[in-house]
Amino acid sequence: MNHIPNANDLLRVQQLIQPYILETQVLHHPDIDRLCGATVFFKCENFQLVGAFKMRGASAAALSRSKEELKKGLTTHSSGNHAQAVARIARELQIPSYIVMPRNAPQTKRNATLSYGATIFDSEATTADRERLVAEVIHNTGAYFIHPYNDYDVISGQATVGMELLKQVSDLDFILAPVGGGGLISGTGLSCSYFSPKTQVIGCEPEQASDAFLSLQHGHIVENKTTNTIADGLRTTIRDKTFQLIQKHIQEIILVSEEEIISAMKYIWQQLKIIIEPSCAVPFAALLKEKEKFKGTRVAIIITGGNVDLDALPF
Amino acid sequence: MNHIPNANDLLRVQQLIQPYILETQVLHHPDIDRLCGATVFFKCENFQLVGAFKMRGASAAALSRSKEELKKGLTTHSSGNHAQAVARIARELQIPSYIVMPRNAPQTKRNATLSYGATIFDSEATTADRERLVAEVIHNTGAYFIHPYNDYDVISGQATVGMELLKQVSDLDFILAPVGGGGLISGTGLSCSYFSPKTQVIGCEPEQASDAFLSLQHGHIVENKTTNTIADGLRTTIRDKTFQLIQKHIQEIILVSEEEIISAMKYIWQQLKIIIEPSCAVPFAALLKEKEKFKGTRVAIIITGGNVDLDALPF
Repeated sequence: MNHIPNANDLLRVQQLIQPYILETQVLHHPDIDRLCGATVFFKCENFQLVGAFKMRGASAAALSRSKEELKKGLTTHSSGNHAQAVARIARELQIPSYIVMPRNAPQTKRNATLSYGATIFDSEATTADRERLVAEVIHNTGAYFIHPYNDYDVISGQATVGMELLKQVSDLDFILAPVGGGGLISGTGLSCSYFSPKTQVIGCEPEQASDAFLSLQHGHIVENKTTNTIADGLRTTIRDKTFQLIQKHIQEIILVSEEEIISAMKYIWQQLKIIIEPSCAVPFAALLKEKEKFKGTRVAIIITGGNVDLDALPF
Repeated sequence: MNHIPNANDLLRVQQLIQPYILETQVLHHPDIDRLCGATVFFKCENFQLVGAFKMRGASAAALSRSKEELKKGLTTHSSGNHAQAVARIARELQIPSYIVMPRNAPQTKRNATLSYGATIFDSEATTADRERLVAEVIHNTGAYFIHPYNDYDVISGQATVGMELLKQVSDLDFILAPVGGGGLISGTGLSCSYFSPKTQVIGCEPEQASDAFLSLQHGHIVENKTTNTIADGLRTTIRDKTFQLIQKHIQEIILVSEEEIISAMKYIWQQLKIIIEPSCAVPFAALLKEKEKFKGTRVAIIITGGNVDLDALPF
């Protein structure tokens, strides 16, 4: 897709990917409502295939290509969940996948990617080195490249999280989602603008990787100065397509500290009994931090993934 | 209730406790189906209030009493989840609760019980000492005693897990549930006998706490010889009311080893992204062990609770 997806594009993509993804549950707990002073819903994309919403975007991008375009396989660069998603949809389509992963990617995500039959190439942890290596892979294999977020097909796939959520829960005042490269928040912003304009989408970022916050403030893309955050899914920087959609649809980004992320993560494990990555504790940490803002409203939080190394927990 | 609950009793109890409990989700994952060669559903009572199905039985017993009987509060002895459940329903009814807990009960369950406002009395880890101390508490306070399982009101409350599950998932061939004191398995056996006679209920126990298995074999209650199992919820021994119902409704108990429990527990954490106690990994371990038996069938597993000490994981 070479244009900003319209409502019909989103509906078409939703139908296209439906056989390859799960409709995920929404959880709700009265004790959390009491704590927050709001009615809080958790959209559990940690229950999605590959354990993350990324399966939606990767499926949307792959299934939008012709058989001819796909026959040499798929490639991408990703620190984890998008890698698994591309590897899994490639396996479903019976084509090869070649994944460039930074050396510091969590072992558990690396193993999972291998388990779907991917070939992994190790890069340095910088965006520049990832991009250099993926160009080499494309040159050598002819594989089709699926960008982890700066791609309208991927964004329209991620938009189906919000579409599904809006059907499952009525009258939402807010949806809170984390911002990494911006694919999910862009898709969520789009789906609310078409299907529930009264629902405000708020982005949430670690103070240690605040590129979207700074970019909105400055009116142009500001790269992350540090990516020293436990929220490994949010270390990437937004790009032109996602920045443009964030500028149009997201009024506010809330920042939270590392301590707030870890404490919110542990609270969700203990109270909701679900396994979530540090990245998706970021919106809940934001909700706790800005309680007054959300008082008495209906808020949904997108739980983006649950791929955690159980042998290396931060608590 | 002083008789074995009939179908109308169960329907009445279901309505009675409805405002005090949650309807819990059922999860399903295609990769688990593939691994097991069966269609497998997980009834997530770890999402229940207090993080365990015990909220149902405790609510049923408390709400079946008159205001007069309740006014001096509730008491029980329990290693954890039933304690929390009695403490929580007492708080809801604005009456005191007095809980006898063995000294070796997990700290996380002890803290949660305190958080509902209970007064805790420490006993030795034997059934005899628990019962001695609870008799003392009843004498001193006049509180109403809710046995953790050997009580027809409690059993009818636990039966609502199966009733709810049978509505959520059609045509189940098997329901697998762990056996501790036998309240849940008795209730599940009853609910299937009334509402889905074709569904076979199978009990699952650790080899290290196999009292129900041995009791069925011998035709009389055999006490646990050891309770040296990580499945702390299953260390109790069945009693007359639960044994009688197990004899009538449960044809088979499957035993599993400690290694099988830990490995099944870790697999569920990783694949389903939910936090479960060792006790409820026991049925999934049994399913994996007896794959051939369940091949091609529709099986539901009751995930009984999710109250785990995150600082002391067995893996």
